[in-house]
Amino acid sequence: MVAKPLAVLVIDENRIRASIIEAGLREAGHDDVTLVHDVAGIARRIAEINPDVIVIDLENPNRDMLEDMFQLSRAVKRPIAMFVDRSDSASIEAAVDAGVSAYVVDGLKRERVKPILDMAVSRFNAFSRLSRELEEARSELEDRKLLDRAKGILMKSRGMSETEAYALLRKAAMNQNRKLSEIAQSLVTAAGLLGDDA
Amino acid sequence: MVAKPLAVLVIDENRIRASIIEAGLREAGHDDVTLVHDVAGIARRIAEINPDVIVIDLENPNRDMLEDMFQLSRAVKRPIAMFVDRSDSASIEAAVDAGVSAYVVDGLKRERVKPILDMAVSRFNAFSRLSRELEEARSELEDRKLLDRAKGILMKSRGMSETEAYALLRKAAMNQNRKLSEIAQSLVTAAGLLGDDA
Repeated sequence: MVAKPLAVLVIDENRIRASIIEAGLREAGHDDVTLVHDVAGIARRIAEINPDVIVIDLENPNRDMLEDMFQLSRAVKRPIAMFVDRSDSASIEAAVDAGVSAYVVDGLKRERVKPILDMAVSRFNAFSRLSRELEEARSELEDRKLLDRAKGILMKSRGMSETEAYALLRKAAMNQNRKLSEIAQSLVTAAGLLGDDA
Repeated sequence: MVAKPLAVLVIDENRIRASIIEAGLREAGHDDVTLVHDVAGIARRIAEINPDVIVIDLENPNRDMLEDMFQLSRAVKRPIAMFVDRSDSASIEAAVDAGVSAYVVDGLKRERVKPILDMAVSRFNAFSRLSRELEEARSELEDRKLLDRAKGILMKSRGMSETEAYALLRKAAMNQNRKLSEIAQSLVTAAGLLGDDA
């Protein structure tokens, strides 16, 4: 298995089903398993336990219960495998939107716990990678736009060439030990306040 | 259900298991179901049938068979639900990487076909949306870098200001009814060929 054992948190109000999940995990070599039987105050418990993966078994949740768990899923930013006994298309879509990595309808079985956990981890990692790449691309784009606006302000207000404007911004960033985009942001903000926007 | 019925293709060499899947689909109101029992030449069959979703049941595939199906998954760019009877962690990760939207280990059951199909569609859509956003952000970033390089070339070689360089590129794009990024690309390419890169 993996080098570092995964800390698994199992949330299940039904003790019989919880023990099925626990047995499946232990058979698969997961020894770091914490069981929680009470959903109340679960967000705080998660913060305390700090698990690598969360397994939530809900049997037949009502709409409010599901919505609560989806909100939890958005907040915790960890792989989550969720078991329900039945589900409609809308809830399945909501589960995916909430970032539930494995949403298993009518499929709780001891032997299946391990592959579902593996699946949840793999899917979570794939989605996180893509999200991170998107965040990076967008942030680079924003930085570039900001830099262009800052250069434009200097070129207009001080009659500089593009090269001179860029050199000035870079020098300010180095002198102040700040990122170029932060200097650009300061200039754009200041120009806006001073009514001097290019 | 949905407005437009989904065309579902089921690929299964085992006719008994295929009929379980088909029954699950028909019970859930999916009438547009095509069964294919032979994996040979499947890529061409998919192109002919043009399904909205693909269900592949593999029972106990060997490594080559799995790899073939993962390659198929990468190529078809459609939601794919895959059933296998057993799987190791590496194959689960490979399935996720290949874009298999639902990879179900040891879970074939008539009642579960519909939720798994719904899940595959939801997950495929969520992942496609994120991928598309990433592609757009990266392409916008590339366009911007290209435009900056093209402006730089004009500013250096023709002693233009940044504003003049931009205006010239824009005018060329409008006159030739091409995108600004295409004009910028032409200029950058030409400058490279002429040894005149800024």
